[in-house]
Amino acid sequence: MKVKNRHFRTIRPDPDDKKNIQIIDQRHLPHRFIIEDLRTVDDFCTAIHDMHVRGAGLIGATAGFAMYCAVLSAPEEGFDYITASSQKLLQTRPTAKNLAWAVERQLREIAKGENRQDRINISFQTACDIADEDAEFCRKIGEHGLEIIKGISRKKKGEPVNILTHCNAGWLAFVDYGSATAPIYAAHHAGVKVHVWVDETRPWLQGARLTTWELAEEDVPHTLITDNTGGHLMQHGMVDMVIVGTDRTTFTGDVANKIGTYLKALAAYDNKIPFYVALPSSTFDWEIEDGIKEIPIEERSGDEINYVTGLTGENKLETVLVPTKNTRSVNYGFDVTPARLVTALITERGVVRAERKEILKMYPEKKSEK
Amino acid sequence: MKVKNRHFRTIRPDPDDKKNIQIIDQRHLPHRFIIEDLRTVDDFCTAIHDMHVRGAGLIGATAGFAMYCAVLSAPEEGFDYITASSQKLLQTRPTAKNLAWAVERQLREIAKGENRQDRINISFQTACDIADEDAEFCRKIGEHGLEIIKGISRKKKGEPVNILTHCNAGWLAFVDYGSATAPIYAAHHAGVKVHVWVDETRPWLQGARLTTWELAEEDVPHTLITDNTGGHLMQHGMVDMVIVGTDRTTFTGDVANKIGTYLKALAAYDNKIPFYVALPSSTFDWEIEDGIKEIPIEERSGDEINYVTGLTGENKLETVLVPTKNTRSVNYGFDVTPARLVTALITERGVVRAERKEILKMYPEKKSEK
Repeated sequence: MKVKNRHFRTIRPDPDDKKNIQIIDQRHLPHRFIIEDLRTVDDFCTAIHDMHVRGAGLIGATAGFAMYCAVLSAPEEGFDYITASSQKLLQTRPTAKNLAWAVERQLREIAKGENRQDRINISFQTACDIADEDAEFCRKIGEHGLEIIKGISRKKKGEPVNILTHCNAGWLAFVDYGSATAPIYAAHHAGVKVHVWVDETRPWLQGARLTTWELAEEDVPHTLITDNTGGHLMQHGMVDMVIVGTDRTTFTGDVANKIGTYLKALAAYDNKIPFYVALPSSTFDWEIEDGIKEIPIEERSGDEINYVTGLTGENKLETVLVPTKNTRSVNYGFDVTPARLVTALITERGVVRAERKEILKMYPEKKSEK
Repeated sequence: MKVKNRHFRTIRPDPDDKKNIQIIDQRHLPHRFIIEDLRTVDDFCTAIHDMHVRGAGLIGATAGFAMYCAVLSAPEEGFDYITASSQKLLQTRPTAKNLAWAVERQLREIAKGENRQDRINISFQTACDIADEDAEFCRKIGEHGLEIIKGISRKKKGEPVNILTHCNAGWLAFVDYGSATAPIYAAHHAGVKVHVWVDETRPWLQGARLTTWELAEEDVPHTLITDNTGGHLMQHGMVDMVIVGTDRTTFTGDVANKIGTYLKALAAYDNKIPFYVALPSSTFDWEIEDGIKEIPIEERSGDEINYVTGLTGENKLETVLVPTKNTRSVNYGFDVTPARLVTALITERGVVRAERKEILKMYPEKKSEK
């Protein structure tokens, strides 16, 4: 998508040196646009764990390139190094399904390599494929979601469709387009009027820092709100639909997403507002049946709650402490929205009810594995 | 309640000069404890509007003293000045019921005065009565709420009772004890083990800044969480009850409280966790039947969302901008939780179902007015 009218992806091999992988270091957005070079497996682990990159698809794509980096760094018969690197990567973010998916796909492909150079070529190609597929899947999610938005727009006789989203499931969370934002961008580019309510998304403020920035760069009308506000807006007819992303969705339709998503799903349900979850198939978990009981929920540092970073009057980035220094806080990264609250999933193959039978009908190749 | 082991109230006449009303300027908490002197009606209006003082009971008590100040400042036959002052006060915070309640009570009492000095004496006494009653009503709310907590504690065989609260309905929101916190303090002082989940409460962060500070000063175990977290905790059995305050509750049981309360009520209902609202009778609205349609919801400056204030590493208070400068945000201060989601109200007279008939049975003098 666009940054100052130039097209960018969130991750790419440096055109001048493909051993060097370039990312946008998202910790500094929206105030600084900084490209970071990743050259070692540890660079990649830090970038994922400390959220230089974040978001379902981008974590997967970054893990793909990290595995290429592991192959590059490994000695001739270095399977131990590659396996150890994959283990290290898997521990960086426990909830994200795309991470395991990308690492496992790379391990399967790398195993086919006949020698070191072959494995390097294969892992590079696989990393590029993962990134390209991610972008293409998001583009298709946009096409399918566009039809839903068009339907609401028709009912509203062309008045702006008010869409609420939580966290950032935008292009910054993927390689391009985003999941939740793909239908929004598709509608905006098709001339369908939309307006986005952006949940600021505490504690990391992905909505305030990333989603508003993305939407502004693409000229999509939007308004920032606190995470507390959505229920009130829904009670008063100011939200037509909710679209969120997901970090892991079970094949039974339970949706793990940024903490607070469940509260918005409850409010949408209480006010009869459709609640959609957009995801590429790489985010499905085909093993777990009960999302609330079984999806591991990442617990991050309480410092992410107690400290907030922003720009001072002197245009300097500063981090400030909100409660007193010794205040204990706990920071769960995600919650799970039960399938019963989800109107439908928007995937690259189309729109599907959040229900085991329907999901397996859309992905019959997974059905045969079960 | 205690500040560094000394007893404080949130508002009082200066013992050396009762024309001077002293408040704790809550904008600077928890990092600075600053007493502010209020001497003119405009001082009072600014203090209420700009949230030097905030919270249902304290807004009422401050309005009580503001009317005394209006009488003091008025010329001999200055009813116009007093009426104009009351109008100015009523516009500072539209949702808060206690504000109108205190102003109207003062106007009724002041009208009984026979001369200027008489009116000064009456309005001073009435302001003190409002403050004393507020403290006494909160103390009684604590007694009634304590029985509920004791019941849960018994079921848990003395394990800590986990109580979630939103915003600050603590002693800082009243004159003393608080509404939602009164049962918590009563339990803690009675030796019943409690642990409080404190919603940070964006945008003004009353939970992070005020509730954590209050609880720490009284040594009550607590943990700070983002507003997004409560649903997840409830899904996993980590919350035994919710207690919140309210800025206005209809006699039909609809509860206006800090924005986001409705989302917690939905989650409590979905997880079969009791959801209590604590209030003195001064917070009841005896006119309005439909809270969602009829209670006016204050809209405040979007700057409260875009900017966050805290302490820098150099121990300096600094305000930082989170999104980019031109980001539009809207800031609704309150939402309304429908009575159907409220387990019961805890008032100074006892615990009552959030229902017209039951509430009017508890306040029969209001029934006769209807």
